[in-house]
Amino acid sequence: MNAFQFVNPTRIVFGEGEADKIGQFIAEYGGRTILLVYGSGSIKKTGLYDRTLKHLQDAGVTVHELPNIEPNPRLTTVKKGIETCRANGVDFILAVGGGSVIDGAKAIAAGVPYEGDVWDFFTNKATIKEALPIGTILTLAATGSEMNGSSVVTNWEENLKRAFGSSYTYPKFSILDPTLTYTVPRNHTVYGSVDIMSHVFEQYFSLTKNTPLQERLCESILQTVIENVGIALENPSDAAARANLMWCGTMALNGGLISVGMQNDWASHGIEHEVSAIYDIPHGAGLAVIFPNWMKYVHEERIDRFVQYAVRVWGVDPEGKSDKEVALAGIQATRDFFSRIGAESRLADFGIGGEKLDRMAEEAVRYGAIGSFKRLEKQDVYAILEMSL
Amino acid sequence: MNAFQFVNPTRIVFGEGEADKIGQFIAEYGGRTILLVYGSGSIKKTGLYDRTLKHLQDAGVTVHELPNIEPNPRLTTVKKGIETCRANGVDFILAVGGGSVIDGAKAIAAGVPYEGDVWDFFTNKATIKEALPIGTILTLAATGSEMNGSSVVTNWEENLKRAFGSSYTYPKFSILDPTLTYTVPRNHTVYGSVDIMSHVFEQYFSLTKNTPLQERLCESILQTVIENVGIALENPSDAAARANLMWCGTMALNGGLISVGMQNDWASHGIEHEVSAIYDIPHGAGLAVIFPNWMKYVHEERIDRFVQYAVRVWGVDPEGKSDKEVALAGIQATRDFFSRIGAESRLADFGIGGEKLDRMAEEAVRYGAIGSFKRLEKQDVYAILEMSL
Repeated sequence: MNAFQFVNPTRIVFGEGEADKIGQFIAEYGGRTILLVYGSGSIKKTGLYDRTLKHLQDAGVTVHELPNIEPNPRLTTVKKGIETCRANGVDFILAVGGGSVIDGAKAIAAGVPYEGDVWDFFTNKATIKEALPIGTILTLAATGSEMNGSSVVTNWEENLKRAFGSSYTYPKFSILDPTLTYTVPRNHTVYGSVDIMSHVFEQYFSLTKNTPLQERLCESILQTVIENVGIALENPSDAAARANLMWCGTMALNGGLISVGMQNDWASHGIEHEVSAIYDIPHGAGLAVIFPNWMKYVHEERIDRFVQYAVRVWGVDPEGKSDKEVALAGIQATRDFFSRIGAESRLADFGIGGEKLDRMAEEAVRYGAIGSFKRLEKQDVYAILEMSL
Repeated sequence: MNAFQFVNPTRIVFGEGEADKIGQFIAEYGGRTILLVYGSGSIKKTGLYDRTLKHLQDAGVTVHELPNIEPNPRLTTVKKGIETCRANGVDFILAVGGGSVIDGAKAIAAGVPYEGDVWDFFTNKATIKEALPIGTILTLAATGSEMNGSSVVTNWEENLKRAFGSSYTYPKFSILDPTLTYTVPRNHTVYGSVDIMSHVFEQYFSLTKNTPLQERLCESILQTVIENVGIALENPSDAAARANLMWCGTMALNGGLISVGMQNDWASHGIEHEVSAIYDIPHGAGLAVIFPNWMKYVHEERIDRFVQYAVRVWGVDPEGKSDKEVALAGIQATRDFFSRIGAESRLADFGIGGEKLDRMAEEAVRYGAIGSFKRLEKQDVYAILEMSL
């Protein structure tokens, strides 16, 4: 276990009906004039928008809106949000939606008090030193963004998808009402679950030794997601399955608690970001394609971790098998599971061919080799993308 | 899973040598005149006291001291600390030690700005509304007090051991340096490990349904403690085992994260508190005696949880056994493990006979029946104490 620091100030409010107390939460954190950030309008269909607006008005809060945050939130939209905040003296940002909405809200929150271009935070040209306070009402089990300080935004003009992480952009509170996820479309329940599992993979497949508790926490989340996705797909209103998936999503990326003292990898996310920066496919869909191929490409770097994964998470019987056979069986089980719940297995399923592989591989290593389980150079990224075609 | 709220603002600083940065942490949190709280003097033997004092002096901090916090911290000592703080304008409390030292520091922190008797907080006569800021340097893997707002104090004159919990008494920071636990005596390594496991039991044995992730997190801690205690006992300077035990202790009771949305029990702690309030035995030692008997007494309330515990934590093979047989095998495995690592199994091992059983049972239910897995009335507590003789 390596030395580490951990602190996570986000307050989680979990339970059915909690979103109806939004007025009181905004008041508690001093919000008077807020920016309400949301996505494509599903919250209008479900009635959540109307209810939220009414509660805010009842609480005497002045509401400005930024609708239509994209599934891969775009820099242009973030900049629009920053302008709206500045023009109206917004003092609090409320994100109602999934990871993209929350990530967009964080970028806006950091951008408002910053004199330069908010993109600077994504290109390491500047460090966040302050941000507007943020609250969230989560509507999708996936991101973990509701309990961490990270944000991923796409610069569509340059086909760049980049991330920042800051202690200033942890939400003050996040309301997790599992019943709000009953209406999530089937494919997004799938992609969200892949996203959760992928967040765990990025932390679990680590070269750091002597981290038995952290490994078990990772495995606990994986097992619980695997156990619950099918139930939620079969019965979208299954209260227990939705609650379990939602809490798994938050725990998988709550400021890194499950992997304290461990070196993380995050290469697969880097590779996926290059794919969706160009082709705009759902993040979880891209991860379902990339991750099993990353696993195949890197598993020999530390075969014992892949053996443990196969045995503990997938129940692979190691009896009479070599370590490599056990490891590969675990990787195959991962691929099979993703396919079974309905995630795509190839880039071709999205009409993506090999034309831009070189460019994606080039961009992925723009700041140097990526990953830590195995350091990936351009040719490694290219190989993994090629395996994914 | 029930509705819940969770927030834990404590900053954890984990790693070898981190305690040597104490001057900078105190400064960061605004401490100018502090109360240094510690125990029986083991930190003087190990040199930690001298090092800490030097770092504080180098940082220009004025230090007042409260030494000799008892293993079951006493109200009289807490009151002495409160007086010292008031007389010297103390603005920060630094606890260097294990759970008792930290618990004592919390009571002092809450007592300083309160006009009434600090004991009011332990008897529900008053609620904490403010407290001095606290920091800790942990020297024992056991309590979890380093990352929660709870405190347990003994009113020796009345033989009462009582607890409070408050959001105001979470430490601002806790420094966890596993190397500081290398010198912990063998029996306290044992009792600390029993304490950690007992904290998990109080949360894990719950009637709340549909909490698969929480259950697995509990099991993860139990498995990791079981795996590491023996190593630490054999080689007290085993870096990995000490680090794992320390992090398990913190995770087991970090504001209830591992059991969010679950009803907790805490009856066994209530019973043990009555024993140590009269006989002043180590908390973990008392728990090692009480808990297996509590398990035997209550397991039929929810046999499936005890079956799961036996199978997942102790590897009991359920093949051909009734649920009751599996459950009892798990309970026996617990008892055997505690004995194997050197914890006492009977109150008689401490020279405690049946004379005061009635009084202890009476006091345990002073505010009504205790526990939630099974509500325990006076006669139930009496029965468990009798089984423990």
